[in-house]
Amino acid sequence: MTKPADEPGATRPRGRRPGETVTREAVLEAARARFAADGYAGASIRKIAADAGVDAALVIRFHGSKDALFAAAMALPPEAATMLTDALEGSRDEVGERMVRAFLRLWTDPATAEPMLVMFRSAVTNEQAAASLRSFIRARVLSVFLPRFPEVADGPLRATLASSMLLGVVVGRQIVGIESLVDADHEELVALLAPAVQRVLVP
Amino acid sequence: MTKPADEPGATRPRGRRPGETVTREAVLEAARARFAADGYAGASIRKIAADAGVDAALVIRFHGSKDALFAAAMALPPEAATMLTDALEGSRDEVGERMVRAFLRLWTDPATAEPMLVMFRSAVTNEQAAASLRSFIRARVLSVFLPRFPEVADGPLRATLASSMLLGVVVGRQIVGIESLVDADHEELVALLAPAVQRVLVP
Repeated sequence: MTKPADEPGATRPRGRRPGETVTREAVLEAARARFAADGYAGASIRKIAADAGVDAALVIRFHGSKDALFAAAMALPPEAATMLTDALEGSRDEVGERMVRAFLRLWTDPATAEPMLVMFRSAVTNEQAAASLRSFIRARVLSVFLPRFPEVADGPLRATLASSMLLGVVVGRQIVGIESLVDADHEELVALLAPAVQRVLVP
Repeated sequence: MTKPADEPGATRPRGRRPGETVTREAVLEAARARFAADGYAGASIRKIAADAGVDAALVIRFHGSKDALFAAAMALPPEAATMLTDALEGSRDEVGERMVRAFLRLWTDPATAEPMLVMFRSAVTNEQAAASLRSFIRARVLSVFLPRFPEVADGPLRATLASSMLLGVVVGRQIVGIESLVDADHEELVALLAPAVQRVLVP
């Protein structure tokens, strides 16, 4: 009943060449090791490609950018990597509220919630994953926050404090399952958290 | 060179009777299972003693109280169980600052920091530990917070939000090791966090 293996396309799922899945996994493994060893800024697509024994152009074709490769290596979908930094765009008076909404969306949207959970559990139990998360925060969160708030003293401290506070809330709500947090809807959480986050982010 | 085993006290470390260490561990195992199954409020010393096959008086002699037994079962020293609830005593205007200081102390004091880490890693990777933590928050944190702030609407939500925010900060600082948080001293953290926590706790 099955097609003979030599018929064109018979054993090739969705147009991938034979061996491509193996190559993709080798690239992700090389990326995880490089990001952990060299940090986000120090790891390059060229080095990762060399580690995986493939051409850099192939890594670009698979993932598009270093950001997307990092997200894939940490099992985060690409939209997770930009959702929080996007929240920093727009009116400064409402940046706290936008950050709260972005965190809640990130941890409840089915496309991002499960990968975030994997990422978080990795980072609190594994030093390699923690190192990757640290370099991501340095290179992505801070590099977007600081130029937008050039006059804010303690900018890195403020941005990482606000992010950590919100991480704690989603961990308490989605992982530990604290009842009063689970029972609260997004609007109740936004109403209580947005002024606090705003106050930490912007003097 | 060693004393003969039949000489009084020869094999008894610090006055414990033979078999006492085994019995203590059986009590802790029974306590962990009961707290997870019945919650903090539902678990009783009588039931835990019965599960461990010992007399309730022996459990009291070992641990002193249900609070202390829970702390021991979750590998937390007894002072950790009261440090945060103590922070709720005193002037309402400074309750945010006292909570921030209590969290920072809890996670940097050598006597409590390592057990807190064990507790936290258990709660984010193991549903039994998460259930124990939830029932502890319900029975201990909320039972102290709510009577002190009877007129505060959303009291349970406010108290658990503030605790989760602070948990996120200490996790980012002590576990993930985010540089800007590690580099900040307690006074810098208190200055930025106390107003935010105050605002979440008290309208």
